[in-house]
Amino acid sequence: MGNSRENKAIAIDAMGGDKGPNEVVAGVAMALKNGWIQDEIHLVGREETLADLLREHELQTLPGILLHPASEVIEMSEKPVQSIRSKPDASLVRTIGLVKDGRCGAALSCGNTGSLMACATIKLRPVEGVSKPALASVWPGAGNHFVVLDVGANPLCKKENLLQYAVLGYQYAKDALGIAHPRVGLLSNGTEVTKGTGLIVETHDLLQAIQGQIHYVGPIEGFDLFNNTVDVVVTDGFTGNVLLKSCESLWKMLKGLLKEELTKTPLRMAGALLLKGGLEETKRRLDPNNHGGAPLLGLRGTVLKAHGSSDRVAIANAIRVAATAMEHNLASHTVTAIATANETLGQSLAGES
Amino acid sequence: MGNSRENKAIAIDAMGGDKGPNEVVAGVAMALKNGWIQDEIHLVGREETLADLLREHELQTLPGILLHPASEVIEMSEKPVQSIRSKPDASLVRTIGLVKDGRCGAALSCGNTGSLMACATIKLRPVEGVSKPALASVWPGAGNHFVVLDVGANPLCKKENLLQYAVLGYQYAKDALGIAHPRVGLLSNGTEVTKGTGLIVETHDLLQAIQGQIHYVGPIEGFDLFNNTVDVVVTDGFTGNVLLKSCESLWKMLKGLLKEELTKTPLRMAGALLLKGGLEETKRRLDPNNHGGAPLLGLRGTVLKAHGSSDRVAIANAIRVAATAMEHNLASHTVTAIATANETLGQSLAGES
Repeated sequence: MGNSRENKAIAIDAMGGDKGPNEVVAGVAMALKNGWIQDEIHLVGREETLADLLREHELQTLPGILLHPASEVIEMSEKPVQSIRSKPDASLVRTIGLVKDGRCGAALSCGNTGSLMACATIKLRPVEGVSKPALASVWPGAGNHFVVLDVGANPLCKKENLLQYAVLGYQYAKDALGIAHPRVGLLSNGTEVTKGTGLIVETHDLLQAIQGQIHYVGPIEGFDLFNNTVDVVVTDGFTGNVLLKSCESLWKMLKGLLKEELTKTPLRMAGALLLKGGLEETKRRLDPNNHGGAPLLGLRGTVLKAHGSSDRVAIANAIRVAATAMEHNLASHTVTAIATANETLGQSLAGES
Repeated sequence: MGNSRENKAIAIDAMGGDKGPNEVVAGVAMALKNGWIQDEIHLVGREETLADLLREHELQTLPGILLHPASEVIEMSEKPVQSIRSKPDASLVRTIGLVKDGRCGAALSCGNTGSLMACATIKLRPVEGVSKPALASVWPGAGNHFVVLDVGANPLCKKENLLQYAVLGYQYAKDALGIAHPRVGLLSNGTEVTKGTGLIVETHDLLQAIQGQIHYVGPIEGFDLFNNTVDVVVTDGFTGNVLLKSCESLWKMLKGLLKEELTKTPLRMAGALLLKGGLEETKRRLDPNNHGGAPLLGLRGTVLKAHGSSDRVAIANAIRVAATAMEHNLASHTVTAIATANETLGQSLAGES
């Protein structure tokens, strides 16, 4: 939800990805073809480049596709706050601007994560009752996909932050990912409440008080992450960031090792050829690009960060998730959910005294 | 090193593992056959059972294999402190007792991790200058193996703890795993020092002061874990525990998914058959059982926890690692290393004032 009116248009930073603007425009074309776009698409970037690409993809005559010029591009290596201050006409900055101005309800970028977080946090106000936004990430599990938050926006979390992240994650899993009754777990070093740190024990008490609202299942441990025990994993931004990057590193190592072993002898190579479909299917099922990327939650407006190396399929999927979130009124549901949680907690505290 | 004298005998809890005492005795036989045992082996457990098993494995006449009766067994589900208090004659408790009494230099168990940690922490004094012991874990990476600590002994770490863990991990990687110049990294949410929490920034300063002693490479992030960037990963017991269990969960999910995809069609099954060697080799290379299990570091005496499901190969490997550690004088090196680090830090602090 923008500042001024309910708005379901999507602003897209067309310049930030590793694969360049052509892949972004191709993603828009794919999303259109699949019927995933319900409202305007605002493409932000170098005007001439984008106009050429729209012609190439035969999108130039569609009234729902609009161009917004932006002369600069923030590179992946730039420092967050510095980059958005020194490049006010960067595509990423202009994209967030469209949400700030209320022209779009959601922003999508595959550019510099730090810059996107900094820009959105500075330009968009947080939802009433949310102290700090969270960066969430959608991971593949055995038979489900689950949301992990925070994965890096807020390394030093307080219990209030974690409580808010539980509500934000629950609502996102429900409205954007279409999970009917998301199960929420609090990541700890054991499933017994007493095992956790002070922060975990205190957050557990708060989450129990709003258990009816968010389907809180209790503290979970690392073993519960990939085995379909929960749909939302609540953790601080330090642990979440370490976890996200470590799992990505482990997955990369395993792929490399498997490739090395499966190509060691001609016999194995023949076997691998027969298995090509199975190996590719495994990779596809695990590919996080199919799930819309990483949302920045808790701000007025949906902000999605797609992976820097996103191809057209990933872009189209991110558009689909953003459109789904808006169709299900994620923004207004979030405002209500945070207010309800705070009211319940207030009553629970009043009841105690 | 026991309390009284330098001692290279190994005490083994023969009862605690999931596979029972036969697997433990078979592991001893295997380690003997491979020439991995240099000193006495003290087997602790039900006397009759063990005497029968020694006969079965033709070890009963060897003077270096000794039996120690223990009438009780701590189950995996029992609570740590309660279990060791209520079962003073448990094999696990008696095993640690042999190190405490100075009869053995190292203890090995595949029983209840919590009980082993509690028992060792209560019975064995910490090395001079170490505040709390750490549970370390050895993980397979791309081209190396690396030590992660703490993975659960101390969820709420202070900078002094992390500093000591860096020294303990370095020394273990060197003396027990045979890594000539272990590289030590401090796990953070980014490689820039300023990105980390206050704890990380302060620990970084301490580690830099002893950089020459432990080959400290700086803060690392999750991406650096499995790609042969470091040999020792220093982290608090909360993050380490979450990470250890999450990676195990991810690995289990991946194996399940791969199995499902590779057996979906007859063609794929034929391919998988050709690849059997490659898939098994991959699994073997990743199996943490080949690296001696999880050491409890910082106590007077080497304590090794092998996985509950350890087979004879895992037991034999744990014996090999314990023997290597003692052969290289891990215990006395650790005492010196901690003292040296504290001296350097004292001088560095004095120099500052």
